Parts: sequence; C-alpha cells; structure tokens
Amino acid sequence: MTQTEERAELNESELVPIEKIVSLCKRRGFVYPNSEIYGGVAGIYDFGPLGVEMRNNIRRYWWWSMVQLHDNVVGIEGANITHPRVWEASGHVENFVDRLVECKKCKRRFRIDHLPPENLEKHVCPVCGGELTTEPRVFNLLMETYLGVIEDERMKTYLRGEACQNIYLDYDNVLKSSRMQVPFGICQIGKTYRNEVTPGNFLFRQREFEQWDLQFFVHPSEMQKWFDYWKSYRFDWCQSIITHKERLRFRAHGSDELAHYAKQAYDIEYRTILGWQEWEGIHWRQDWDLSRHSEYSGQDLSYTDPLTKERYIPWIVETSGGVDRTFLYLLLDAYEEQPDPMGKGNDRTVLHLHPWLAPVKVAVLPLQKNKEELVNVSKELYRKLQRLMVAQYDDIQNIGRRYRRQDEIGTPYCVTIDFQTLDDQTVTVRERDSMSQIRVHLNELPMYLFERVTWK
Amino acid sequence: MTQTEERAELNESELVPIEKIVSLCKRRGFVYPNSEIYGGVAGIYDFGPLGVEMRNNIRRYWWWSMVQLHDNVVGIEGANITHPRVWEASGHVENFVDRLVECKKCKRRFRIDHLPPENLEKHVCPVCGGELTTEPRVFNLLMETYLGVIEDERMKTYLRGEACQNIYLDYDNVLKSSRMQVPFGICQIGKTYRNEVTPGNFLFRQREFEQWDLQFFVHPSEMQKWFDYWKSYRFDWCQSIITHKERLRFRAHGSDELAHYAKQAYDIEYRTILGWQEWEGIHWRQDWDLSRHSEYSGQDLSYTDPLTKERYIPWIVETSGGVDRTFLYLLLDAYEEQPDPMGKGNDRTVLHLHPWLAPVKVAVLPLQKNKEELVNVSKELYRKLQRLMVAQYDDIQNIGRRYRRQDEIGTPYCVTIDFQTLDDQTVTVRERDSMSQIRVHLNELPMYLFERVTWK
Repeated sequence: MTQTEERAELNESELVPIEKIVSLCKRRGFVYPNSEIYGGVAGIYDFGPLGVEMRNNIRRYWWWSMVQLHDNVVGIEGANITHPRVWEASGHVENFVDRLVECKKCKRRFRIDHLPPENLEKHVCPVCGGELTTEPRVFNLLMETYLGVIEDERMKTYLRGEACQNIYLDYDNVLKSSRMQVPFGICQIGKTYRNEVTPGNFLFRQREFEQWDLQFFVHPSEMQKWFDYWKSYRFDWCQSIITHKERLRFRAHGSDELAHYAKQAYDIEYRTILGWQEWEGIHWRQDWDLSRHSEYSGQDLSYTDPLTKERYIPWIVETSGGVDRTFLYLLLDAYEEQPDPMGKGNDRTVLHLHPWLAPVKVAVLPLQKNKEELVNVSKELYRKLQRLMVAQYDDIQNIGRRYRRQDEIGTPYCVTIDFQTLDDQTVTVRERDSMSQIRVHLNELPMYLFERVTWK
Repeated sequence: MTQTEERAELNESELVPIEKIVSLCKRRGFVYPNSEIYGGVAGIYDFGPLGVEMRNNIRRYWWWSMVQLHDNVVGIEGANITHPRVWEASGHVENFVDRLVECKKCKRRFRIDHLPPENLEKHVCPVCGGELTTEPRVFNLLMETYLGVIEDERMKTYLRGEACQNIYLDYDNVLKSSRMQVPFGICQIGKTYRNEVTPGNFLFRQREFEQWDLQFFVHPSEMQKWFDYWKSYRFDWCQSIITHKERLRFRAHGSDELAHYAKQAYDIEYRTILGWQEWEGIHWRQDWDLSRHSEYSGQDLSYTDPLTKERYIPWIVETSGGVDRTFLYLLLDAYEEQPDPMGKGNDRTVLHLHPWLAPVKVAVLPLQKNKEELVNVSKELYRKLQRLMVAQYDDIQNIGRRYRRQDEIGTPYCVTIDFQTLDDQTVTVRERDSMSQIRVHLNELPMYLFERVTWK
C-alpha cells in the first residue's frame, strides 16, 4: 500500500475529536487525571478499571508477538532509577533539551520546535502577536532524584528519560545468562519520565508514560536485512489491531532528522484529527549505544562470534513505541457514534476494539432479573466464563440499554439467557460490530468465546 | 493449622542461603544488579529474561484471583508521581522516617530499630564496640523529584512511597465510573520508591520495588467480616503457590505496633534462613485514609448508600504485599539441591516452582539434533506449543544435561521426541519433580500441557 493510496481513502470527517475520548475515558473508567482531588498534575494520568484491563491486553499481545513467538528475542524488566553515568553516556544530560521562547506581552512560553516558522522568524507570539524573546532558554527534560540520605553523600541521578537504556546496561548479562547469540534481541516494557515543558493533549505528551522497546543486535553485514524485517513486522503489528488501515503510514526521516550514525529511520504514523502522529519508530542505531557505554563504563561490550571468532560491537535495530499512545490510537480508531438505522432514537456509541484488546470480553445478561430459573443459569454461566476471561454480569434495565452500555466500552460479545435457554440450553450471542445474533449451546459457549477473544 | 504445629514441622537445615539464590538468579538470568557495568546502585535491581517471565506470571495470577474472580473488585493503575499534598495527607512527609545513630569510632551507621537492645541501651557499636551517637538523626524515606522546568515555578514532589495512595485518589472516580457499590475493592500493582538508609539483602530491602494492594471499602458494621475474609483469602493464596506450607504463618501485630485507628493487623510471614519475614500485611485502616484525603483536599469522600441513604466514610481493609518479595520467597521455597539417588554423580539443582508460575513451561528436546525426521517433528511441535506457552527448544548436549538445565530454572515439563515418535506419534513427557516419564500422543500434548501450566 503506498502513501498516496492511503491518503485517497482517508475520510477526514470520520476522525474523532480528542475531547470525545477524554470524556468517554473518564465517564467509563478508562483514564482519570492523576491526583484530581488535589487539582491534578499536568501531564500525569491514572488508568481506571477498564483502562488497566485494556493496557494489560495491549502489553501482553506485544510481549506475546515480540518475545514469545521469536526464538531469538528475550525480555527484561529494568529499574526506573539507574546510575547517573548512564545518562552521560547516552547523551541525555547534554542533549535531551527543549528550547523555549517567551512572549514579552502575554508571558506565554513556546517550544521553538513547535512554533510556526513565520512566528519564529518575525519573533511574534502566535497567540497575542506580542514580541517574543530572541534567545531561547534551554531546559533539560530529565527528572532528577537523589539516592542516599546524608547530605554530603547524596547522589543525584535521574528517572529514566527513555526506557531502552536498561537493555544496553543488561546486554552483557543477558548474553552470559541466556545462551542467545547474535543476531538476537532484547525487549522491555516500562515507564519513562520527561519533564515536558508543555505537557498536554491528553495522553500524547505526558510526563510519566510507558514505552516498549526492542533492541535487536546484529552483525553489521546483516543490518539492512534485520532493519527491513522489523520495520515490516512492526507495521503489520500495528495494522493487525486497527480497523482504519488507511490511517496508518510510514514516514521516512529526512536527512536533517537522522542521527549521524543512522543510515535511515522510519516512523509508523497514525492519522488523528491533529494530523499524522508518531506511533512507533524504527531506528538504525549502528554501534552507537554499545560503543558509548563501553567507553563510559570501561567495560568492553564487544561480542565474539563463537564460530568465526570475529570480535565486534554489534549494530542495533531499535523499534520503540508508546503503550499510552497505542492505547489512545486504538480508542480513536475504535470510536464511532452510530445513528439508529431505523431512526427510532436507538443511537449508539460503539468502540470497535479488536476482541483481543477489549477490556471486557463478554457480558452475561439474564433476560429478566427476577426469574429464578434464568438467574441460576446466568450466574452459573458467568462463574464459568469469569475464570477464562474478563466477564461482566449485568441485569440492570432492559436488554437494549445493556447492549448500549457494553457497546460503548467495546465488549465484543453479549450473551443473553432467555426462556428458550431453559428448553434447549442455547443462549443468544450478540456480536458488537454487526449486532448480529446467533444461538450457541451452553456447552460450546466457553470455547466459542475463548477462541475469539484470545490470540494463539 | 496453628503456629505451634507449623514450627514443629519446620526443618531449619532445609532453609536455603540467600547467596545461592543470588548466584542462580544472575547465572540463569532471573535478576541482575542494576547498572552493573557502572558499578551498580545499592538496592536497585533489573530482572532478566527468566525473571521477567516469572514476575509476569506472579502478577497475572494475583490479578486473576483478586480482580477477575471477585465481582466486587476492580483494578486501577496509577502514576508513580502524584501531587505533593498527597504525601502530606498520608503522613509520609512528617512520619515516614528512619532514625540513625553513628559509631564515633568506625563511622558505621545503624537504624535504631535494627540495633540489638543492649547496644542501643549502652550506646555501643555492635561491630567494633565503639561509642554510638546518642541523638539519632532523622531521615525521610520519600524520594524527591521536581516537576516544571522554570526555576521559580518548579514543584517539588515525591515518587510514591507506597503504591496504595493512588487508590484513595481514584476512589471517587472509580465509584462514579464503574457502578461499584460498597462493599467493593480496588486493586493495584505498581512501583514504590524508598530512599532506604540501609538497602541490602538482595530483594528484601530495595529502593525501587513493586507492591500489590487491595483496598476494600466497607460499611463499618461489616469491617470484621471482611477483615476476616481477606485475611484468610490472602493466607490461602500464599499457601497455594509454595511447597513448604510449614514456612508460612500469621503474626498478629502487638498493641505497640498498631496504628491508633487499627483494631488489629496481621502479617503473613515466610520463614527464611534470616528468620520469619513479612510477606503480606492485612490491615484494619478504618476511615483514616479517606478522612485524611477529604480533609486535605477539601473534597468530600463520603459515600451514600443507594438504598438506606446513609452517608458515611467507608472503612478500609487493606491487603498489601510485595511482588519482589513474593518472587524471592518462591525461589527460596522452590530451590533444592538433590543428590543423585544412584550415587552416580547426577546431582541436580531443581526449582520446584508451581507450574503456573514457572518462567518456562515446556522444553522441546529432539533426542538427536542431526536426524532430520526427529528435528522436523520437534520443530513443528515447538512452533505449536510456543503460541500457547513459553517454550524452549534445546538440542545441545545429551538429554540428561538438558533435563538438568531445565530443572534448575523450574521448567515443569520436558518433551522428548525419539524414534518411537516417528512410529506411533507419541512423545516422552518428563515431569520435573518426580522425574517420572509417560508417553503422550502428539495430538493430545498441547492440551495436556496447557491444562497443567495455566490457572482457570
């Protein structure tokens, strides 16, 4: 699929305003502002009951496909606090900065990389037209903390500004303990902290967020081959969990964006109402990271090929993305307000989430809440399903209202227990997107659902 | 089971030295010292390929039993950084302190709560006998960090010193968005940070670690009932995943340990070579937390019963434990060095980990690595199993050596493909603890294994 083709198919009027997602997230328990009772903290969020289930599903699917299915990939989980020298070696202490100018009139501050070129050139504020300061102030994004309690022995260090550094730190230990040989990869999912000058746009630019990384170590002669493999694999992965395939594209980094060691780099982008946004990066890191850490730590991180005895610093293909961004793109992709086709006011909001990733897999709905026979069968079924998947039992209000509630949180299947169930042991299974209904025998139902809501 | 009975059965000579676990963890890729190439950071660790799989299993089993199986419990995942007022309300800014004395002679420092009473009383150093300072210095354990980049607008806040605070912060949002009614609970698993004065003993006292919490909200009249329920539930849970049941006990907090609002409190303790150690705490928190946050935030966190219209601050039963401690106790519990019963030098180290929690579920072992027919069948089987569970393919060295390697990391099942397989489609399944072997048909193998390594 070429970019032109994608764009031709894109229907901009279908793009969902972020505010709709923010509102749904708070109302149904996906995402809350952190410390809201104390007025909140800019750029920091908590995940509610549905949010945490969906995040766990996203993480597990990533881990399953990246680690479990790849013989030559293993995982680690490193600490958020590391030795401060790590961030000197990585270049973050020196270079992980934002540059800010301020409007002398309205006092608003702007990152110069976010200012429209004409404002930057003429030094005028894009909001009030006032004069901007000319010399940008430079701010480092690393968040500081201190280890040790005695004043003169305290060590200043940083919360990790990117999660992947732990992979370089543990690379040698992994090699020694896991029987991996180059080419091989190390994956990690974990928190990252950035003291963003201008946090905002909900989950887009947070101060605390979560990244997933693969660092794949190769012989230099195989760099292009593996770069191409992972570039394609990650695109397919993103594509596998969205409905609007036309909102996905590659963007090649221009020569002005490339690090000096990078032959090429690509972003996988998702189209939101704010434009094309980065989802995942595929980076050609060459021997930069391991060489720097060898130099700064004094530990030789080179690798000896067990067959040829060639000794070299492996090159690295990195794929790096955000759990929170994935979470947000999936909601933006899934959200739809559907008018009632019959015009009877039965409009619905539906999340077309992939069944693997939906927070609740099935809702068990007794047709009536006061008929003991229905309730008994329903509860027994619910107890059985609950052990296999996240299930909800709902007997409040009429079936239509219950369907709507489940549609809005993306539950792929609703199971209704009615009087026919008592006769023939079948239940109605209603599918979320098509709203089609079929009858399935109670004995077959657990496997029927399990196969549809779980990857394998 | 009474404590006396437990103690009678305990065999102290079987208790495993911590160093053996530390060594195994590093050698086989469970745990590495963080930033080791830079000399490490005291009290901070990374988890390697096997460690992260085992941790994920432990977390998932906790989450499944606490959240998924309880209709009246939901989960959240809050941020590690919160508003600083949270830590004033919680009392941590004021009271979360260690008191230290120093030896004037050898300059060693000691937490006064760790000093033997006779040393404390006589002010003498337990190491060199020198004189100790009399006035302890007080150190707060909260780790500071700063949000915002402009010097005069920077906000000092803290990394969370206990994870559960997010639950109180989100309590009202959960109530509004999840349709829960008292009694109900909120669970969370997440990182905690403590600037320990004396980090040490491997995973026992870390500066960055992970907690799991349940905060269960009840009407005051039902406090005792739910306290008893969760106390018993958590004990059973811990018991369900260890082999040495006699190493588990309750310890009731003495009146001198109880918080002023607590009628009672229990630790679930696990017996290690260092003595009985806390695994999990069951706490009677009354209305302390919600009242304090109501007071400090100005938000009314009381609850109105939908039926009786009674308005009150719910009381809380807390169960709180550590993921890292669980991880460590499970390894200590599982570790055994078994001499060869035949005296032929085939000693083995085996981890008797519960199959649910073992990092690798099955190893696929072709009897010979160079027989194409065996390799083809083995690879095909491996590809199939890999999608269902964490599997390893191993064709290096003889079968006995391969069994030993898997025993040492706790792999519950080894599957050997031999020449009989080519005839009758059966493979040898060897169970880790009993070392017994049976033959299972290839078609039945995936389900045979799946049922044994997964909870449901």
